[in-house]
Amino acid sequence: MNAPLPEHVLPRLEPRRIPAPMLEALRARFGERCSTAASVREQHGRDESTYPVTPPEAVVYCESTEDVAAVVALAQAHAVPVIPFGVGSSLEGHLLAVQGGVSVDLSRMAAIVRVDADDLTVTVQAGVTREQLNREIRDTGLFFPIDPGANASLGGMAATRASGTNAVRYGTMRENVLGLTVVTASGEVIHTGTRAKKSAAGYDLTRLFVGSEGTLGVMTEITLKLYPLPEAVSAAVCHFPSIDAAVRTTIQIIQMGVPIARCELLDPNAIRAVNRHSKLSLREAPMLLMEFHGSEAGVREQAETVQALAREFGGEDFQWARTPEERTRLWAARHQSYFAALQTRPGCRCLSTDTCVPISRLAENINDSIAEAEASGIPYWIVGHVGDGNFHLSYLLDPNDPAEAATVERLSEQMVQRALRLEGTCSGEHGIGLHKMGYLVDEAGAGAVALMRQIKHSLDPKNIMNPGKVFDW
Amino acid sequence: MNAPLPEHVLPRLEPRRIPAPMLEALRARFGERCSTAASVREQHGRDESTYPVTPPEAVVYCESTEDVAAVVALAQAHAVPVIPFGVGSSLEGHLLAVQGGVSVDLSRMAAIVRVDADDLTVTVQAGVTREQLNREIRDTGLFFPIDPGANASLGGMAATRASGTNAVRYGTMRENVLGLTVVTASGEVIHTGTRAKKSAAGYDLTRLFVGSEGTLGVMTEITLKLYPLPEAVSAAVCHFPSIDAAVRTTIQIIQMGVPIARCELLDPNAIRAVNRHSKLSLREAPMLLMEFHGSEAGVREQAETVQALAREFGGEDFQWARTPEERTRLWAARHQSYFAALQTRPGCRCLSTDTCVPISRLAENINDSIAEAEASGIPYWIVGHVGDGNFHLSYLLDPNDPAEAATVERLSEQMVQRALRLEGTCSGEHGIGLHKMGYLVDEAGAGAVALMRQIKHSLDPKNIMNPGKVFDW
Repeated sequence: MNAPLPEHVLPRLEPRRIPAPMLEALRARFGERCSTAASVREQHGRDESTYPVTPPEAVVYCESTEDVAAVVALAQAHAVPVIPFGVGSSLEGHLLAVQGGVSVDLSRMAAIVRVDADDLTVTVQAGVTREQLNREIRDTGLFFPIDPGANASLGGMAATRASGTNAVRYGTMRENVLGLTVVTASGEVIHTGTRAKKSAAGYDLTRLFVGSEGTLGVMTEITLKLYPLPEAVSAAVCHFPSIDAAVRTTIQIIQMGVPIARCELLDPNAIRAVNRHSKLSLREAPMLLMEFHGSEAGVREQAETVQALAREFGGEDFQWARTPEERTRLWAARHQSYFAALQTRPGCRCLSTDTCVPISRLAENINDSIAEAEASGIPYWIVGHVGDGNFHLSYLLDPNDPAEAATVERLSEQMVQRALRLEGTCSGEHGIGLHKMGYLVDEAGAGAVALMRQIKHSLDPKNIMNPGKVFDW
Repeated sequence: MNAPLPEHVLPRLEPRRIPAPMLEALRARFGERCSTAASVREQHGRDESTYPVTPPEAVVYCESTEDVAAVVALAQAHAVPVIPFGVGSSLEGHLLAVQGGVSVDLSRMAAIVRVDADDLTVTVQAGVTREQLNREIRDTGLFFPIDPGANASLGGMAATRASGTNAVRYGTMRENVLGLTVVTASGEVIHTGTRAKKSAAGYDLTRLFVGSEGTLGVMTEITLKLYPLPEAVSAAVCHFPSIDAAVRTTIQIIQMGVPIARCELLDPNAIRAVNRHSKLSLREAPMLLMEFHGSEAGVREQAETVQALAREFGGEDFQWARTPEERTRLWAARHQSYFAALQTRPGCRCLSTDTCVPISRLAENINDSIAEAEASGIPYWIVGHVGDGNFHLSYLLDPNDPAEAATVERLSEQMVQRALRLEGTCSGEHGIGLHKMGYLVDEAGAGAVALMRQIKHSLDPKNIMNPGKVFDW
């Protein structure tokens, strides 16, 4: 196993074993759907973070809300941890079984429960992935815009309050979840929200669960907003003399209120990686990859406005992706940038930051981070949902070089502290997990975190729901 | 005093007196800003609901977060209720001192703390009203869109998760609050959220407080999103042969994804009232009052699309409000419809429903409600944020006629139950307060309400924050 980063040593928490009667009860109910095989456990004890594999003691493949409720009821009775698992694409150690317990695999809960095209809503089981959803609703003329890099499950996306490239126009999971079915820590099934677009009825439990990273309950069904496929879509790339120029163009686009659908920054390192991985020939210079949604005339107008702004900052003429296929190829390349970049340094691991700041502070946030990265000499690349003030600087580090690992962790810490000074957040979209627990306190303050903890204690007094994550018990 | 409606009898809760040492401490700190005068207490013991006036025992005019924290700390020590008060425009009995206690008047906390025009954000004290905010930021070229009928305080609007006529395009307080300063039940001051547009850092405390109706803490400062004033704005009215036709046009507008900024229904009764009150001469036929925001071309295009849709349902040609003054006059009339209608039946009181359903169910929801209203013979009028699936049917009732009051309460109950059957909510924007506590259980289910109660018990174990509201202790 690779040496973990200095800060990526697992917290020392007391393991909580599954008592024999509980394991027997699980086997009695779930048969082969309850596995303790080493390979299965290992697969469920890792994510895309740099932490060492930390397997659960058992994995149960659930096929219904009732299945999940049965597992949680047993876990509650025996005070055993429960960790919901979608596709394993989280980035901050969310899925690691730091106190053992049962991984509740939701990947077989992959049914689209109902599509209400006339209401622009859909209800899915938590294991449905974002790509599957869009494939299955294609003939309704609607789509679901939230697209984190991975083909994540919608349960995982709700749990981490995910966003992605379309968030600048369509919002994040915070804005796009209408309601939930949740198995609470007591094993009860509750429903939150309605299919109405808005409501002033009671506490906003939906948004309490969205982003709670599995620490308050297991989401099993999710009702989402959908959007009509725009009449016209056009995508373009624009190269700039510097990253600063690309970022300043973005700031202007947002301040003017241009309803741009996607506004992504790629630095030359990222472009080099995607060129190689996706067989593209993009110029290896700072670039914005943009998309416009609307009517034919509206899209043209937005593009003209943005092109004029870009020119002021030295941006070159737009290169248009003229066909849907070209567009898909560009965006697929963007989405694969993470894996593309990993391949540029064989054997490396990746540490990615995820800060998000008010839009006027974005240039400072990115420029200073780049200066530090350049000075370190460690390979890195940048992609960013810059329209949201959010960017990722990802280091490719040799996990067997403790000095390099220590440097990266220090730089990552500096980037987070800078974002907080600029009145931003330590996580735009990846969540807290294990890795950012300390930063959450820096950001929210001890008082606010204490309040989160009170809620957790109240709803999960035995600390069985994904324990050890987000904040200390 | 008028007889309350049958369902508007106050719950029988034990009064909790302010002990002498606490009153002395309040007087010592606040001097004349702490009042026990009957007139002041009465003014703070009522809202726009039909409940009898229920005054607090004292009123404290706070001027800072520290003031509020001082009151709450004393109230915590002495287990005395605290009720935050903005302008008194709530509609479901939110402000009534059903167990006595201290009304914390925030109207003097009316400063705009900071405007960050480059980030499209503003931070205000909780007592700033929505009209004041838009007046004070006018020269930034930005505006804040949320506009409930009253000129409410932004604290009150956040507490009830308010929306209004622009919500169809810009969202509600749920989507537009970025962060809060809150005095918790323990008297501690915490901050939630950041000025970044999105965040995946920890539990969404901001949205837990938004809509919690003062039962979890007192919001003292609020950071809000602002929007660039659109390049072009145009407003039009369109008359229809029936309310059904107007509603079906609306459904099509939403399903097609037209980014309409405002889409309001007025029935002939509402138009009659606003004509008289605001000296207008609108045709007294079912009407949509619409507004389009965007570029010149975009606004034209939206209007053409909507006009074509309206024609399919028998809508007449648009009558345009051609100048900003005409537009302001129309919207002022719409905002005054509540008070205008009250004047059509002298001495009456008003009971207004507030259901919101998925857009495809809106026609059924409105049509059936109208049939019942017509059959009752009791005067009523309808306005609705129909683009959101939300409408208000308001009865004008003689408070001294118990039979009429009973009928209205029964019809109101039927409307709520219909909305729930149609998968909607009992409150689109007014909140639960005292009046809809039973409906909240019908809507969310006992399990979800029990979870809300657990959160309340955990964060406010002495039940001092606006007790007796939203759900039973």
